[in-house]
Amino acid sequence: MHNLRSNLINNNKAKIILVVLDGVGGIPNNVKTELEYAKTPNLDKLAIKSETGCHIPIIHGLTPGSGSAHLSLFGYDPMEFDIGRGVLEALGLDLEIGKNDLAIRGNFATVKEGDNGKLIVTNRRAGRIDTKTNERLTKKLSAKIKKINKYKIIFKSGIDHRFVVKIICPNKIDDTNCFIQDTDPQAEGLEPLLAKNLNSKAKALSGIVVKLISSIEAVLKDEKKANFALFRGYSTFPGVPTFQELYGIKAASITTYPMYKGIGRLVGMSPLKVNVNSIHSQVSALEKNIDKYDFFYLHIKKTDSYGEDGKFKEKVKVIEEFDKVLPKIKKLNFDVLAITGDHSTPSKMKGHSWHPVPVIIKSHNSFEGISKRFTEKECLKGNMGIFEGKYLLNLIFAHGQMLNKFGA
Amino acid sequence: MHNLRSNLINNNKAKIILVVLDGVGGIPNNVKTELEYAKTPNLDKLAIKSETGCHIPIIHGLTPGSGSAHLSLFGYDPMEFDIGRGVLEALGLDLEIGKNDLAIRGNFATVKEGDNGKLIVTNRRAGRIDTKTNERLTKKLSAKIKKINKYKIIFKSGIDHRFVVKIICPNKIDDTNCFIQDTDPQAEGLEPLLAKNLNSKAKALSGIVVKLISSIEAVLKDEKKANFALFRGYSTFPGVPTFQELYGIKAASITTYPMYKGIGRLVGMSPLKVNVNSIHSQVSALEKNIDKYDFFYLHIKKTDSYGEDGKFKEKVKVIEEFDKVLPKIKKLNFDVLAITGDHSTPSKMKGHSWHPVPVIIKSHNSFEGISKRFTEKECLKGNMGIFEGKYLLNLIFAHGQMLNKFGA
Repeated sequence: MHNLRSNLINNNKAKIILVVLDGVGGIPNNVKTELEYAKTPNLDKLAIKSETGCHIPIIHGLTPGSGSAHLSLFGYDPMEFDIGRGVLEALGLDLEIGKNDLAIRGNFATVKEGDNGKLIVTNRRAGRIDTKTNERLTKKLSAKIKKINKYKIIFKSGIDHRFVVKIICPNKIDDTNCFIQDTDPQAEGLEPLLAKNLNSKAKALSGIVVKLISSIEAVLKDEKKANFALFRGYSTFPGVPTFQELYGIKAASITTYPMYKGIGRLVGMSPLKVNVNSIHSQVSALEKNIDKYDFFYLHIKKTDSYGEDGKFKEKVKVIEEFDKVLPKIKKLNFDVLAITGDHSTPSKMKGHSWHPVPVIIKSHNSFEGISKRFTEKECLKGNMGIFEGKYLLNLIFAHGQMLNKFGA
Repeated sequence: MHNLRSNLINNNKAKIILVVLDGVGGIPNNVKTELEYAKTPNLDKLAIKSETGCHIPIIHGLTPGSGSAHLSLFGYDPMEFDIGRGVLEALGLDLEIGKNDLAIRGNFATVKEGDNGKLIVTNRRAGRIDTKTNERLTKKLSAKIKKINKYKIIFKSGIDHRFVVKIICPNKIDDTNCFIQDTDPQAEGLEPLLAKNLNSKAKALSGIVVKLISSIEAVLKDEKKANFALFRGYSTFPGVPTFQELYGIKAASITTYPMYKGIGRLVGMSPLKVNVNSIHSQVSALEKNIDKYDFFYLHIKKTDSYGEDGKFKEKVKVIEEFDKVLPKIKKLNFDVLAITGDHSTPSKMKGHSWHPVPVIIKSHNSFEGISKRFTEKECLKGNMGIFEGKYLLNLIFAHGQMLNKFGA
């Protein structure tokens, strides 16, 4: 798909913005969805002048992780490119991942010894310790654990209880070398799982990870809350071709969460500095850098966070907050203004879902006048229909008249 | 796709007509699209008795050339079959293309010597010289240039400034041997490009083409307008299986433009003689030959031409003209009557686009009663939904009850 687009690209320097309201799609909770309940006069005005439709992030019925959903929005087939959570987290924390590197997503956790002498996870997030404590702990770990055999170990603190481990191997590794079992049992009251290798090629690295876990346990043994670490998302350099390589497009990301900065960086987007964690501050960053890039990816996180927590009204408020800044974005006169979510996170379900996500695209070439609002039901009527998310970038480029004709 | 259909075919000699209103789809231009603006009482009556939907010619966001879009309508995967413009033009001009042949689409053009002594294209179409002048010029070229080394050269005049060159090679060639740069610089005031080979396998043919261009320049040097030729669309025999081979169906085309006759012939359709370039004359040809074929492809060109020229009202008139002859087609009692476009050509955009194209299919098996008109918005509601154009032939055959069950 990206090769096809790459062959047809005619980079006319159209100005494009893709706004991703994370997890914005919902299902009716007491009659209305979050988007239907929200008062969004500016989005309404835009929707009626836009081409509309809904995307399904992967294929019908599949609920995506944030990484896959975003890759799809960025035009990569999520079935072809599978990027581990570890790599996404690492990139988001400014930790470069090269061809020798294994990235692991870690959670500080609380364990206690069970009646049988075995460890039991009592809190998978160490009671969501704060970022400062996290920084103290990773510093401590970094001081004590530098190498295991010939493998160099790097710790990097993230937000709250999350951190990343990068293992620099003596040689180049690939996906097959990282096929190691997650140790997070995904529920409390259970034993941590073993970091066993899930195929024979992952044996060496699995051995290192097992030793690493013991070392971490020894360093943290006197901590009250964070006395253990759970691992998941073992992954290595995925080698995704960038927007610059594929299309000659200079792209920037405007995000407030590490993972999204990470996935932007993976496809070659320069992260813009956002001063405060607020939508306003993100739009200011956009305004300041408007002349420096062709393609902007603006990511708004809180719609998803509140959806995950089942907070319907708070999710509505984030949508309304975005609606208030929308006129500022419209004023920048993008050639293509696209707004969607990466997936649905219905607050009724308290989690990601597979439901189609509304999309609007405003350009000079929009088939306008079909949908009256940016809501699931209104966008379903639109002439983009329901389509796989990986086609969104085709449509965005088409609206920017950046693709040559296919075939004679 | 065509193999699947070929395996399931049950040729019951159903009478089928596929009407292609070239580029009929539009986007709202001042509220309405061309189809919405047109007064089409007969199409309206038909639409409400038909199954409806919209097709996208290739995939979401890709704008097709006419050749690819038609291949898709004829049931071939346009990603698999890529037919060069040269071959399409040649076939349309009754020039057979075999396995040893290279077909090139030529434009007579005007060049002058620039200040630096290099040629500059001052008119890419030689001021759109008339067809008679074109015939005189190709006759002159045919008399003077018969062979270059062991390669035989055939010229054939087309409409206005267009002509075709067929190079008969000493041996069989394939796509890789035709990978030569177009010489049309696509804008006036620029130098003609060189016909250089774009891969090593095209070196021999590129050398012949370069010599051919010099010879043409020498023959035309005293012409005032048409003193040069620009080349594009180098292509060879694509080897598409025909309707007869795949389905045992006798098919006919009713077209007024060479290229569409050409693409019909490629899939095995016999071109019917049309006396005058008018929709009426096309329908007369249909009436005359109704007993001789099972499948008719009726192509109406002007909807696209006016769309390309940005002439909204003229495009509307062609639609209305077709509406007036529709009762004559209905009177012929086809088992399946399908009407669509090959792609959209919104007059607002003055060019082909990627927007979905309305489709109606009338048969005894139609899910009727959903769409009130043959317009983009009304057909979007239909039960065929939005589908890739390559599936249209499945639906047409299905309505004719010509496909056996798939699977047990």
